[in-house]
Amino acid sequence: MAKADSPSRWRDIRGIGFAERAPLARAWAWLDSGLFLPNREPVRPSKTVGRVLSSYEPMRTDWPPTDRAAIDGFAVRAADIEGAGIYNPVPLALANSPGTGRAVPVSAGTAMPPGTDAVLAFSAVSRSEFGRLEVLVEAAPGEGVSARGSALDRHAQVGECERPIRPQDAALFAMQRVENVLAFVRPEVRLVIPGPKEGDAEALETMLRALVVRDGGAPSGGVFRWYGEAIAAAAEADVILIAGRSGAGEDDLAAGLLVEVGGEVAMHGIAMRPGASSGLGRLRKKAVLLLPGEPLACLTAYDMLAGRLIRRLGGFSLDLPYPRASYPLGRKIVSAIGFTDVVPVALAGEAIVPIASAESAELPASCRADGFVVVPESLEGYAEGERVSVFLYDMFGRYLYYWP
Amino acid sequence: MAKADSPSRWRDIRGIGFAERAPLARAWAWLDSGLFLPNREPVRPSKTVGRVLSSYEPMRTDWPPTDRAAIDGFAVRAADIEGAGIYNPVPLALANSPGTGRAVPVSAGTAMPPGTDAVLAFSAVSRSEFGRLEVLVEAAPGEGVSARGSALDRHAQVGECERPIRPQDAALFAMQRVENVLAFVRPEVRLVIPGPKEGDAEALETMLRALVVRDGGAPSGGVFRWYGEAIAAAAEADVILIAGRSGAGEDDLAAGLLVEVGGEVAMHGIAMRPGASSGLGRLRKKAVLLLPGEPLACLTAYDMLAGRLIRRLGGFSLDLPYPRASYPLGRKIVSAIGFTDVVPVALAGEAIVPIASAESAELPASCRADGFVVVPESLEGYAEGERVSVFLYDMFGRYLYYWP
Repeated sequence: MAKADSPSRWRDIRGIGFAERAPLARAWAWLDSGLFLPNREPVRPSKTVGRVLSSYEPMRTDWPPTDRAAIDGFAVRAADIEGAGIYNPVPLALANSPGTGRAVPVSAGTAMPPGTDAVLAFSAVSRSEFGRLEVLVEAAPGEGVSARGSALDRHAQVGECERPIRPQDAALFAMQRVENVLAFVRPEVRLVIPGPKEGDAEALETMLRALVVRDGGAPSGGVFRWYGEAIAAAAEADVILIAGRSGAGEDDLAAGLLVEVGGEVAMHGIAMRPGASSGLGRLRKKAVLLLPGEPLACLTAYDMLAGRLIRRLGGFSLDLPYPRASYPLGRKIVSAIGFTDVVPVALAGEAIVPIASAESAELPASCRADGFVVVPESLEGYAEGERVSVFLYDMFGRYLYYWP
Repeated sequence: MAKADSPSRWRDIRGIGFAERAPLARAWAWLDSGLFLPNREPVRPSKTVGRVLSSYEPMRTDWPPTDRAAIDGFAVRAADIEGAGIYNPVPLALANSPGTGRAVPVSAGTAMPPGTDAVLAFSAVSRSEFGRLEVLVEAAPGEGVSARGSALDRHAQVGECERPIRPQDAALFAMQRVENVLAFVRPEVRLVIPGPKEGDAEALETMLRALVVRDGGAPSGGVFRWYGEAIAAAAEADVILIAGRSGAGEDDLAAGLLVEVGGEVAMHGIAMRPGASSGLGRLRKKAVLLLPGEPLACLTAYDMLAGRLIRRLGGFSLDLPYPRASYPLGRKIVSAIGFTDVVPVALAGEAIVPIASAESAELPASCRADGFVVVPESLEGYAEGERVSVFLYDMFGRYLYYWP
């Protein structure tokens, strides 16, 4: 298919239809290729959560940076209370500075007073009048102490490359007073949705913005009445999603306008349902995805094509961002050989059942569904009772997982 | 423990330590109680994604609202092409308006021209000169048509109550021109972190903001040098997190200041490690959580206590927002009876191993860990080889799941 990758090969399919459709595997190979590479940038610790770390961050200091009290209580010299017990209380003087025979009150996390080497919990001590204490237990040196470097050696690497940065990672960077860490850039994703801005176009904008955020991208753009102009301006972003006008109807101008403004169409028509009129192309080296305007086809094409690229550019996994579980089918799924079918399914007791075919499903089916099954090109479907892998829309305990 | 719930019962434990600690189950019962109730508000469709729907939204129109072309092609009357086939091509006139013997080009999604009842794909038709077409296949009435109401009856309910609103739900609301849906309010979560704003305090702020967003809350506040004032002002939020100064040291003033500004302490000291100095209280009917300032204890107390309340107020599940998987232990876990221990663990081949004890773990352990094991109060730990349930920090394929 080197031919299809050449811009000069693009032809207007309006009124004619798709002569052939690229298998999904070919679309993925193109999206995953070296044509599009992630970028990195230095990021302040407070802005790192949810990004992916790109290189190990050397630590500045041991952790803890000094011996510290691990608990609230009294810092003492362990040698002073050797042999202490309930029947052998050892007296110590309550004091603000350390010394032989002295106990200094400390809070967890504060540096150990010089010369002290153990912290006794308040409950290990009985207080008498006049600032005298009686210690009822022994302590080994180091007890109640968090020793310098015990949690982290300053030569250790913190954060794992290519792993999403966790809240605790960001906290550790901040505590280490790291100014910046090298993280993957959130790709800017420009939406170009032929409008007027109302009804369906507004719906696509809402849906795509949420999906882009979920996948770690930064959405821009939206609905444009003059969408040819918007396409021309879109190459300043990292990824361009043109949603609508991707088909073979007379008004399906997305592919033609892309070529007109100097872009190229690498594939138009993907062997996937819904979403068969999707296309892939480039504009000044930036990826362009032609997504169908039919909302469920748009969602499917986003998930199967655009999200994959956006996740990769942000340093994330190529995998679909839905938890997967295996269920037996309560009713067979009929699919078409030669198309990857994305079939909405609902839980029915212990099994799942298809609630619409990939060919006829519309958006409400994906609202009613618990998830979807992907039937590969090579299969005609799955038999009743067969176990299939389901991508679930809602996560363990109906948990939230994106937040635009 | 009704006594512990009474504000007059609070006593200053500084320099004394915790006389007793509340079991985690008691803390949960208090957090889950009717003291704190979720609120609902109308929300525009474009702002709904990631919130939880609170009541079914009646639809305005059938979906599709009229018979529409399901594919790009020619709208025809099925009766006109009865018997058509490769050996019996039926001629039709290409036309812009419908009529007997006419074929009208249509794009997928457009309304069916009056009188037409089927759409032929471009490939089903051969074009001859002078606007004549030859139809090579029959079509049943309804073929290539998405019939009015076929995807959704206007009497249907869309969206499922108490389920997070998906991008496709929001799109459907927008397409139905619903102005507002009733959704759970994102609880405002006020952070009060004793400062100066640098190092550890800044780290806690970064971490807590990310966690609050992850759980569906709206964070406000931050680091305050005069944190007593900040506590006094915090009751305008829904949930107040005071992070730091929760222990028994001299400078641990959080609980005392809460009482001083008119609040109450319901429990101080929770039988959980790390995080044993956590507390729960109220200020002008708003929930106050006293979280330890030690970063890992803060994270643990947030996850086990605060996040639970924040999720519930937002309409989400009480469950911890980490995927769970079962693994055999490659090394035993030692725990203390009477404490719920949260133990960081790492994957080691097919098994998991603890990488620090609940008692001594510090933040870097949770950065190195793949997840954690919760050992209930009643157990002394788990034996090597035992299968345990692990909460995993990173989700299927290292996927992103929060985004501050």
